[in-house]
Amino acid sequence: MFHHSSKLQYPVRVDKPDPQFAMLLQQAIGGVEGEIRVAMQYFFQAMGARGDDRIRDLLMSTATEELAHIEMLGHAVALNLEGAPVSYQEESAKDPVINAILGGANPRHLLSSGLSAMPVNANGVPFDMSHIYATGNIAADMQANVAAEASGRVLASRLYNWTDDKGMKDFLSFLIARDTYHQQQWLAVIEDMGGLQASLPIPNSTPQEHEATEHSYYFLNTLLDKEAPQGRWSEGPSLDGRSNFSFKQQPEPQGQVPTLGKARPGSGAQKEQL
Amino acid sequence: MFHHSSKLQYPVRVDKPDPQFAMLLQQAIGGVEGEIRVAMQYFFQAMGARGDDRIRDLLMSTATEELAHIEMLGHAVALNLEGAPVSYQEESAKDPVINAILGGANPRHLLSSGLSAMPVNANGVPFDMSHIYATGNIAADMQANVAAEASGRVLASRLYNWTDDKGMKDFLSFLIARDTYHQQQWLAVIEDMGGLQASLPIPNSTPQEHEATEHSYYFLNTLLDKEAPQGRWSEGPSLDGRSNFSFKQQPEPQGQVPTLGKARPGSGAQKEQL
Amino acid sequence: MFHHSSKLQYPVRVDKPDPQFAMLLQQAIGGVEGEIRVAMQYFFQAMGARGDDRIRDLLMSTATEELAHIEMLGHAVALNLEGAPVSYQEESAKDPVINAILGGANPRHLLSSGLSAMPVNANGVPFDMSHIYATGNIAADMQANVAAEASGRVLASRLYNWTDDKGMKDFLSFLIARDTYHQQQWLAVIEDMGGLQASLPIPNSTPQEHEATEHSYYFLNTLLDKEAPQGRWSEGPSLDGRSNFSFKQQPEPQGQVPTLGKARPGSGAQKEQL
Amino acid sequence: MFHHSSKLQYPVRVDKPDPQFAMLLQQAIGGVEGEIRVAMQYFFQAMGARGDDRIRDLLMSTATEELAHIEMLGHAVALNLEGAPVSYQEESAKDPVINAILGGANPRHLLSSGLSAMPVNANGVPFDMSHIYATGNIAADMQANVAAEASGRVLASRLYNWTDDKGMKDFLSFLIARDTYHQQQWLAVIEDMGGLQASLPIPNSTPQEHEATEHSYYFLNTLLDKEAPQGRWSEGPSLDGRSNFSFKQQPEPQGQVPTLGKARPGSGAQKEQL
Amino acid sequence: MFHHSSKLQYPVRVDKPDPQFAMLLQQAIGGVEGEIRVAMQYFFQAMGARGDDRIRDLLMSTATEELAHIEMLGHAVALNLEGAPVSYQEESAKDPVINAILGGANPRHLLSSGLSAMPVNANGVPFDMSHIYATGNIAADMQANVAAEASGRVLASRLYNWTDDKGMKDFLSFLIARDTYHQQQWLAVIEDMGGLQASLPIPNSTPQEHEATEHSYYFLNTLLDKEAPQGRWSEGPSLDGRSNFSFKQQPEPQGQVPTLGKARPGSGAQKEQL
Amino acid sequence: MFHHSSKLQYPVRVDKPDPQFAMLLQQAIGGVEGEIRVAMQYFFQAMGARGDDRIRDLLMSTATEELAHIEMLGHAVALNLEGAPVSYQEESAKDPVINAILGGANPRHLLSSGLSAMPVNANGVPFDMSHIYATGNIAADMQANVAAEASGRVLASRLYNWTDDKGMKDFLSFLIARDTYHQQQWLAVIEDMGGLQASLPIPNSTPQEHEATEHSYYFLNTLLDKEAPQGRWSEGPSLDGRSNFSFKQQPEPQGQVPTLGKARPGSGAQKEQL
Repeated sequence: MFHHSSKLQYPVRVDKPDPQFAMLLQQAIGGVEGEIRVAMQYFFQAMGARGDDRIRDLLMSTATEELAHIEMLGHAVALNLEGAPVSYQEESAKDPVINAILGGANPRHLLSSGLSAMPVNANGVPFDMSHIYATGNIAADMQANVAAEASGRVLASRLYNWTDDKGMKDFLSFLIARDTYHQQQWLAVIEDMGGLQASLPIPNSTPQEHEATEHSYYFLNTLLDKEAPQGRWSEGPSLDGRSNFSFKQQPEPQGQVPTLGKARPGSGAQKEQL
Repeated sequence: MFHHSSKLQYPVRVDKPDPQFAMLLQQAIGGVEGEIRVAMQYFFQAMGARGDDRIRDLLMSTATEELAHIEMLGHAVALNLEGAPVSYQEESAKDPVINAILGGANPRHLLSSGLSAMPVNANGVPFDMSHIYATGNIAADMQANVAAEASGRVLASRLYNWTDDKGMKDFLSFLIARDTYHQQQWLAVIEDMGGLQASLPIPNSTPQEHEATEHSYYFLNTLLDKEAPQGRWSEGPSLDGRSNFSFKQQPEPQGQVPTLGKARPGSGAQKEQL
Repeated sequence: MFHHSSKLQYPVRVDKPDPQFAMLLQQAIGGVEGEIRVAMQYFFQAMGARGDDRIRDLLMSTATEELAHIEMLGHAVALNLEGAPVSYQEESAKDPVINAILGGANPRHLLSSGLSAMPVNANGVPFDMSHIYATGNIAADMQANVAAEASGRVLASRLYNWTDDKGMKDFLSFLIARDTYHQQQWLAVIEDMGGLQASLPIPNSTPQEHEATEHSYYFLNTLLDKEAPQGRWSEGPSLDGRSNFSFKQQPEPQGQVPTLGKARPGSGAQKEQL
Repeated sequence: MFHHSSKLQYPVRVDKPDPQFAMLLQQAIGGVEGEIRVAMQYFFQAMGARGDDRIRDLLMSTATEELAHIEMLGHAVALNLEGAPVSYQEESAKDPVINAILGGANPRHLLSSGLSAMPVNANGVPFDMSHIYATGNIAADMQANVAAEASGRVLASRLYNWTDDKGMKDFLSFLIARDTYHQQQWLAVIEDMGGLQASLPIPNSTPQEHEATEHSYYFLNTLLDKEAPQGRWSEGPSLDGRSNFSFKQQPEPQGQVPTLGKARPGSGAQKEQL
Repeated sequence: MFHHSSKLQYPVRVDKPDPQFAMLLQQAIGGVEGEIRVAMQYFFQAMGARGDDRIRDLLMSTATEELAHIEMLGHAVALNLEGAPVSYQEESAKDPVINAILGGANPRHLLSSGLSAMPVNANGVPFDMSHIYATGNIAADMQANVAAEASGRVLASRLYNWTDDKGMKDFLSFLIARDTYHQQQWLAVIEDMGGLQASLPIPNSTPQEHEATEHSYYFLNTLLDKEAPQGRWSEGPSLDGRSNFSFKQQPEPQGQVPTLGKARPGSGAQKEQL
Repeated sequence: MFHHSSKLQYPVRVDKPDPQFAMLLQQAIGGVEGEIRVAMQYFFQAMGARGDDRIRDLLMSTATEELAHIEMLGHAVALNLEGAPVSYQEESAKDPVINAILGGANPRHLLSSGLSAMPVNANGVPFDMSHIYATGNIAADMQANVAAEASGRVLASRLYNWTDDKGMKDFLSFLIARDTYHQQQWLAVIEDMGGLQASLPIPNSTPQEHEATEHSYYFLNTLLDKEAPQGRWSEGPSLDGRSNFSFKQQPEPQGQVPTLGKARPGSGAQKEQL
């Protein structure tokens, strides 16, 4: 069960409202790199977690923290929209800079939300829950979580670089810090379970006889006019310790020509296909 | 530029067509764990790749291989739909088992595609390209790719476990093998760039002064009635080697109560809000 | 069956074309507050209406009127796009104001529709039919309709406030008026059926023994650091006349800790979860 | 900021797991009538609330309760999936009843989530955040909330009617009760602000001179072959107390024939259109 | 402006209700081959039509007819759902055939719509308006319309083939007939404008100097291991009468290797990319 | 199976980078008129092709070419984003023209992709695979392909008209040329199969007794106040040679009034509907 306390997790201050930055901040709320995504992803992973109870608690606790991040960002968006014009006649709308409400800003902040945050990204596209990755496999989920936090910290860094508002920079430096930790937190779960080598290949419960292992350790170069790129992926021991990496240059197809033959009568095809 | 050769990458055989399994296989084509996703993800990452050219080649080469996986799965779906009923009157439709065309199978295989594959998942939901993660940050992208291949191999293993068709099992054992390699391939890129520690926190180009580092290394326990779960994430050196992990039990909010005050006249609010 | 007459329901005039306002008007066509939504919502409600035939007629008649609103708005968008630049070289594109075609305007009005209306909102996001709420319960549907018309009139008021075009203001004053009526029309249906008290709780056909009525009339305060807000919702008779409102401060969970135990072999989990 | 306690808000018990019922329950999680929708809707309304602080607290407190409803439903889904087959060969898969995993159940519970809940509806379609209605107008939002809770209680009643599992019936009777209250809670906010008449038309801040009030109080009958349906909506005082209802039979269009003339050169039209 | 008459365009009769067929019929309402699509596509094309007024009238008139098709299909769906079980305990739900409500049928017909039609396809996926193709180019639109009616008639034929209900077969034979006409209607518009040759290439207003015409009339064979398929497309005069068809076997790339160089500082990349 | 060669199909040059044009070009990548659509559409049609093998080869070969078009456009987008500002403080961001990054440009090129292409359209809306039309009927598919290439060439012409960059104009003249050919290529398939008349009505395999042919050749005028528009569609022989065109002025409904009667107990309706 959830509870709420009335203060924000961290102070949110905007020195000079900027409706364009309100639009950019939306990416951190409703973008695929954003906070709705991680809050809901960890929540659904927690609800489906099997095995070590500590992982379930980690997931639920962090989901709960991410809800607080949505809350701070929602407030940051509203503060950046303070004073945005609601009429073409307003002085502010004539100012070529603040005019920005209709150039580079989200018109739906004016039309649809009454100058507050929405669950959409920086293009105004609503977040959709197909981005909640929760497989029931703890290692796959941890990798998905690291990926989410990595793109989240890339985004927060880009927002930090963009703005010159001191309040926003302070707030973003907090989000950057938490994304640093959460990247490491999920990687640390893998460490805690025995380390990367033990967790590979994911799922490590697939019996080796279900796998055509002769195809498991080579890089396939499908480039016709270039040598296979060489690197750690093409030589040395594999990361699961089971084999050695190699590569295949200019591969030949091994399968058949896929032909389906004629269409069946009654299947809606043209007569010429029957 | 791309080219095509007429044979499949690996043989695809179906011993006993099963329209229900055709539906399940769709997840591997048009699901978020599927092959359209990885093909397009690696393709867009390649088109935006900056820095080491070998990574660009790796991405484009593997994108190209994944297109061949879509092709094999598309054929596998069509083969599983051979003989599926197109009329309620057909003997097959009366058979309580094959009747399955309308129970557990995708009715649009009958209605929309003429008994062949579609770019949809196992619920018939079309794939959408918001799932193509390509950030321009090579480490973030590699993590996203590992996550995609991990969920892909989880899916392929579940499909393998479900079916008892020998042709399909053989084909899936090949996909499982390639997913094994591709997980390792993307992890090996991180190794090749100096290893995990060097790549963290992602992006490692964010100057430390942009980060409120006092918030970067602790687990925040938002659980009211439980101790913080302890593990590798709450103690020992951080994975980037910069600090040590710790945890905060029962955190206090540090920010303000977020209040927005009254609505502006002309903003479409109720009079009571002005 | 439907019919069409060639004139618009109400005159639509644009004194000074404005491609930015064309973009804003799209919200009234393809937004969730817009006319496609209400036209289709009333149409599907009408097709599923059971009980009093007058309600079915009301729904179908109003669906038909809303189609005429789409038609007027579509014309208003096209008129606002008259003279928008189709080339960067055009004088109009160099003018920092009309330049707006690429700042605050919808580039797809240029690229995709040939300077006419599209079934998208003010962000260019296409309307999707998941927003057609039609439950088969007449009271639930009426509430959904009031909500739709309320947000519709909020939107029309914001559009009216924004523009200084006299033609557009006249047209919008008509839409505002019809939204006034339609709000009341759907509320009047509830009156006609015996009033709000009789219709609650929706659905009023659910037998009281299907309901844990000890949980039906209190406000649950999940705020840790604030008293429950007091008001009409926390005291006095309930609006269905069956009980009295109260509130619960600082609620305790009543349920169990939800644990799922170990994963099943063959379910694609990591070995550590089995 | 949010917090979590480890127990569920109300006990969740499943006497006989049923993968089909797991699929049906998904509608209450990820459907438009479901709990993600109300949790997020109240959360975003709270973040944008202006005016009376009590309303903001009501919204945030109830958003927090709805998160706990998602949590209970997520557990209910997982419990209903206990023992669902993961292989065609399992005894359970051969049983014509439990076989249901592939007929009437969600194959992605098997393939994608590892037998746990997903943020999708009963068709497996992911929830998308365009359904979060938050206009910044308190009366419009309250109507949207009543509508959401009305459809939510209709859904919970239908789920109650469907199942014969005593545990599930007990759990659903709790959800039905809370939906009863939440319907009334939002209606009570309107009472608290002065009653329905005072809040109409929404937004009540739109000056009457922005409205073509001669069109604000009649029902327009667009039915060619039927008399206008008569009722509370066509006679008597209007619900805002400003006028009287009437109706118009067989309306004539008042506007012009909308013609756009020729296409512009360079606009991508056919020569015949120029 | 639109009007409605109370009777259906054509009689709709269901002899034996079948909830599975209700699900299949949904494809003709809310599928990409369905009636919402053509109604709205012709409506938006009409609103943007420039040039010959007769085409505008054709489009609007046919849009209006298609609305009547939605209405008939909506009734057909509801009739097929008559008597579908609303409770697991009902006799009908125990019958292994009618049980179908949860296998091959749409559970949301039960849960969400109260046993009536929804604006979704046969997988329960809502129609979205991105499928409304209206380019402002009359020839492009006519081709899109022919394509829509072709897939519509394929679908209606498949539905006809599936069902053995005489009422439904009669109704579908009417839809098949109208689709026959509408295919020809749109092709006849091209004839009316001077025939196919005159309309090509679409748009025929593009000046020939905007086109690298040396690339306009050959088939490019990208198949590595097969000869170019020969046919009308590889020899003989081109269909616009301007040139002759040919083909290129084994094409060489003509462009450069696309490289982007290093990432910019401050762009969120890894240090290794700078 | 697919292969890749490292050079682009045609040279791509940008003389003066323009982030706004990068946004416009996205329509040609991820728009419904774009290259992902045709690449995937031809690919899925090829995988489901039945009958003449040459058609399958045509489809697969052209799908492969279209992948190369995505690749060129992706490079064109990245080149147009060279030098776009990543910080508000940059000189370029202060320049009222380049400032355009936040007005008329895609903020996610900055925030999400690291200044490279994304699989989205010019509004930033991701492409979704529901636009892949592949019916299994070769004539329906060819019409859909002609429509796709027609809208594609309209789009390329509009992009050509917009830009004044010589490199981009040269590149677009190549795309325009290939779209010219592909329109004709798919029409030539119909010629090859015996010509348009033979292919109609699509599907031509539907037996005439499945069709209410008395409704197959008339235009239905639903316009109340206008004569039916006259043209090739209302007189002369039908295009399939089976009949003659005519028209119906002011049609009468032939069907019944659709009424559903009362709701069932237990179906979630209001008592008043039972």
